[in-house]
Amino acid sequence: MSSVGPVIVDCDVGVDDAVAIALCVANAVDIIGITCVHGYTSLGNVLANTEWLLRVLARKEIPIYKGADRNLVGESMCAVEFHGEGGLGGVSIPNQPAEGDICREEHAVTALLRLTKERPGEITLLAIGPLTNVALAIRLDPGFTKRLKSLIIMGGNITGKGAEFNFHSDPEAADVVLRETECPMTVVPFETCYATPLPHEFTKSLNSTPTQVCRFLSEITSHSLSKLRKDNIQGFVMCDALAAAVLIDGDIMKHSRVGPACVERSGIYSRGQMIELRTTWHTKKYPGPDITILVKADVNKFHKLMQKILSL
Amino acid sequence: MSSVGPVIVDCDVGVDDAVAIALCVANAVDIIGITCVHGYTSLGNVLANTEWLLRVLARKEIPIYKGADRNLVGESMCAVEFHGEGGLGGVSIPNQPAEGDICREEHAVTALLRLTKERPGEITLLAIGPLTNVALAIRLDPGFTKRLKSLIIMGGNITGKGAEFNFHSDPEAADVVLRETECPMTVVPFETCYATPLPHEFTKSLNSTPTQVCRFLSEITSHSLSKLRKDNIQGFVMCDALAAAVLIDGDIMKHSRVGPACVERSGIYSRGQMIELRTTWHTKKYPGPDITILVKADVNKFHKLMQKILSL
Amino acid sequence: MSSVGPVIVDCDVGVDDAVAIALCVANAVDIIGITCVHGYTSLGNVLANTEWLLRVLARKEIPIYKGADRNLVGESMCAVEFHGEGGLGGVSIPNQPAEGDICREEHAVTALLRLTKERPGEITLLAIGPLTNVALAIRLDPGFTKRLKSLIIMGGNITGKGAEFNFHSDPEAADVVLRETECPMTVVPFETCYATPLPHEFTKSLNSTPTQVCRFLSEITSHSLSKLRKDNIQGFVMCDALAAAVLIDGDIMKHSRVGPACVERSGIYSRGQMIELRTTWHTKKYPGPDITILVKADVNKFHKLMQKILSL
Amino acid sequence: MSSVGPVIVDCDVGVDDAVAIALCVANAVDIIGITCVHGYTSLGNVLANTEWLLRVLARKEIPIYKGADRNLVGESMCAVEFHGEGGLGGVSIPNQPAEGDICREEHAVTALLRLTKERPGEITLLAIGPLTNVALAIRLDPGFTKRLKSLIIMGGNITGKGAEFNFHSDPEAADVVLRETECPMTVVPFETCYATPLPHEFTKSLNSTPTQVCRFLSEITSHSLSKLRKDNIQGFVMCDALAAAVLIDGDIMKHSRVGPACVERSGIYSRGQMIELRTTWHTKKYPGPDITILVKADVNKFHKLMQKILSL
Ligand SMILES: [Ca+2]
Ligand SMILES: [Ca+2]
Ligand SMILES: [Ca+2]
Ligand SMILES: [Ca+2]
Repeated sequence: MSSVGPVIVDCDVGVDDAVAIALCVANAVDIIGITCVHGYTSLGNVLANTEWLLRVLARKEIPIYKGADRNLVGESMCAVEFHGEGGLGGVSIPNQPAEGDICREEHAVTALLRLTKERPGEITLLAIGPLTNVALAIRLDPGFTKRLKSLIIMGGNITGKGAEFNFHSDPEAADVVLRETECPMTVVPFETCYATPLPHEFTKSLNSTPTQVCRFLSEITSHSLSKLRKDNIQGFVMCDALAAAVLIDGDIMKHSRVGPACVERSGIYSRGQMIELRTTWHTKKYPGPDITILVKADVNKFHKLMQKILSL
Repeated sequence: MSSVGPVIVDCDVGVDDAVAIALCVANAVDIIGITCVHGYTSLGNVLANTEWLLRVLARKEIPIYKGADRNLVGESMCAVEFHGEGGLGGVSIPNQPAEGDICREEHAVTALLRLTKERPGEITLLAIGPLTNVALAIRLDPGFTKRLKSLIIMGGNITGKGAEFNFHSDPEAADVVLRETECPMTVVPFETCYATPLPHEFTKSLNSTPTQVCRFLSEITSHSLSKLRKDNIQGFVMCDALAAAVLIDGDIMKHSRVGPACVERSGIYSRGQMIELRTTWHTKKYPGPDITILVKADVNKFHKLMQKILSL
Repeated sequence: MSSVGPVIVDCDVGVDDAVAIALCVANAVDIIGITCVHGYTSLGNVLANTEWLLRVLARKEIPIYKGADRNLVGESMCAVEFHGEGGLGGVSIPNQPAEGDICREEHAVTALLRLTKERPGEITLLAIGPLTNVALAIRLDPGFTKRLKSLIIMGGNITGKGAEFNFHSDPEAADVVLRETECPMTVVPFETCYATPLPHEFTKSLNSTPTQVCRFLSEITSHSLSKLRKDNIQGFVMCDALAAAVLIDGDIMKHSRVGPACVERSGIYSRGQMIELRTTWHTKKYPGPDITILVKADVNKFHKLMQKILSL
Repeated sequence: MSSVGPVIVDCDVGVDDAVAIALCVANAVDIIGITCVHGYTSLGNVLANTEWLLRVLARKEIPIYKGADRNLVGESMCAVEFHGEGGLGGVSIPNQPAEGDICREEHAVTALLRLTKERPGEITLLAIGPLTNVALAIRLDPGFTKRLKSLIIMGGNITGKGAEFNFHSDPEAADVVLRETECPMTVVPFETCYATPLPHEFTKSLNSTPTQVCRFLSEITSHSLSKLRKDNIQGFVMCDALAAAVLIDGDIMKHSRVGPACVERSGIYSRGQMIELRTTWHTKKYPGPDITILVKADVNKFHKLMQKILSL
């Protein structure tokens, strides 16, 4: 077992969510639950994808919980272009069970509240989808985040080029989480992820390793990686996996900034953008907590952790 | 017992919430629970006010549930000017118990979900505060409103003069409720309430009836009524009570409109405004359900129901 | 000559603009200039339509000025459904001159500034299109409206059913005009116009009067009137004409409200909505002037003025 | 004379505007007019500051034009904290003439239109204040920017840390200019300016050079530089001066990006933020032109140009 302690993964599996969870499993992270949320694809697809992933990883004992099927204000997005039909690169699920057989009866938000009550101060929450479940947990129980050990989020932007998908998918939830969280919180923004591609060597190893896990990951990542190459992004970029790597080994964080940040809820062009408030001379005093925002990651350390996937 | 069937009151007691609940009790409405929400005053005050009210009404067996302490996006307002310090016209509570002794352990939202599962299709929800609890119930359980018999809301505006307090206090929640509710829904907007003042005769009767209930209501309404007189509004105007009256006797509705409506979430000046979409030639097709919006109420019928309070 | 004094009409001709200008001419209003603006149709069409109208009215000496071709922030709308292709009910213009032969070289905004300098305190501005030209005049010369005798605007809404076309077409301009105008200002909102239809008798007379003007107006209004009938609106409703009638005879105003109002510039659903601020308890102190907002018009007086068109 | 050709400076003098104009004069730029706009300080102060600056520079023949006194939608900001009372570091103006003696009668916007008609394709516009005048010129005359040789703007942000002052002061104008300009356009954002501080050596030279110009600049920059030091920003940072340097010598631009960008007009937190649209995968197709955005400047080349000020 990793020294990280118990972890709940809140996610919208999703190609890079799948890689992130495989990375956790490969590094012996103690995942005590997976709470699903709408995101790249419909909540129904997310549940089925998660179940399939756990089958491939031979970790069917990890409980799956069903969460919110749309964002706080009732919208739902999807990202078919990047994640393919169904959310796993267009690959279809063999022997898909009925939804009732996939997830527990308990709601994801209720599970988040219960598990943190059972193990206060122990659990790290790795949130790699839209933050709807997390915000609902905060709103239903203001003490929720105080019972977390820490919160690691993949989401948000640090340049002025528009919103990142997770925050854009539920800006209200993201703003609530960034402002009301009361445990240590780390944000892994998309620019940092895109600036930390794994070398082609990793893709090649993944594609040529004849294990069930590698064949699965090779197959589902193929669609996104060819989309990235079309956009002239070289290498293996899987945002959620970098957030998981930060969870496993904090030393991956080479450079980070600390300060409050908020998320634009209004905005014609900027809905969902994260705004760091450290240096904004004209922002009114903002009540949010300090957030650790990852600016630069150690690609070699990330690569080493990822290589453990090849031995699964 | 009234023929209305079981009723849950979601409220932010509050002067006119207190009158509305007294009206329900006076007309033998079967209140099976009161779910409290932030609003006119802090959630802590709302809980204490509700408990005091039930003591005065000798209905301490009605369970009180604690709900959201701020709106979906994390803000909280209050309306001290109209409702006075503490939310009950500045009157202070005798023998106030500790919060733990006031409300059940179960959260208001969980109670809403459980009670409607126990009695599907039977319960009417009378929502006379900000709609945070109701929206959270919808988001956590998309089937929630399908299990309601009906939903009656005090809130919203029908003229272009700015937002009403309940919708303004949680525009996101109000928009979710107006768009996603799947049971018959009636909205009692503030203009209709202000156009249906009870005659001074009622105030005089209330002030001169020597029961404990009338003395209590006389005392707590005094602040608001003198505020109304300063604004040149004559008569006894208690918005939440009109919504309760609509619950008790639908014939009170003399004129209403039916059509979809939404609530502005953005807006420099119009955040929280309700917008009826029947005649808006430039609005894109809007997915919300038809809502019955009360335009004109029968003041005599309303007065008759209210007079039952004098016999409590 | 009418006792109204010199008048500039700022408009986006447009079926009801055409009727409004005909109404002014029929009642001997001294129109000293027509400033054109984008609106129902493209600015090019507005210019050509205005020129054709003046030919039909035998008033080719009235100077036409070319104004803004899109709103302050660079958008342009149009309303083909109501006004037909080209903006005059789909009717096409005979012997259309080149644009250079239609309008003066001087810009509409420059003309507004110059004419009010030449005749300070004398000129009434009748604004029956999007308020872009008027707002530009205010921004370029803060003293502009002080030199007007009065400003009469067709635009805005008084109920909460979404924005009216003129204000929706340039919310920023409408807000600037409502807030910064320093002469008496009257707003004729669309609800009042729709509540003041002329009887079918008028339509019949117009259609059967064999003058060139009546044949022209009969032809161009046919499209809009049949659209209105489809929406179950009976009678002859021409919004801009009511504003012109208010200019000609103020006694047409049976009931009006006086107070500040603003226009929503942001808003998902409410961009362009007018918001009266008299009774909005939660609006911060707003710096705008008092505006006379027409609530109820005298349909008989309006009808009498309109009948003069039959004698043109 | 510099090879740059005729230049109009649109500005809100302001400490760094003064340095920018001094830099132009020191490098023999042919300034044919200065159009003033509200900004750091009131328009009245901007006019007086500009006149004083031209006196100190012995360039009183350059015509000064009075432009907009507030932004397109009618707001006005100021930045006393950075620029001091009056906008020139708190320094007060000796022998201040009456406003009528400072500026031409012609409005700044009219002057922009006229001058570009007289010399089409020749004039570079250096815009170093809020873009109100420029947007008004575009709105009044859609052909305006086609007659410019180029447009260089100090303004906007490239990181997600909130809006820069010039764009924040008139977001609508900035958005209009970025979207509708039809000549080559360069944006010098504030992050690039702050990343290009001149070494302390320059401040020392400026403070110790006993010319009238250096004494003046030394005096007015003292307030801002001490404010910068408090914020831990070392060196001489004068944003507008970098934009002027780009005008004088394009080789200063070491690294720039080319693509469309827009400015947020709505937004609770992000009003006025520039958003680059090159890589925003979720932005709808945006109609704006390509803009050259300066990312990295050559501080040595900048320093060399600035040193010419010491010989004025
Ligand atoms: Ca994800
Ligand atoms: Ca209430
Ligand atoms: Ca019109
Ligand atoms: Ca400046």
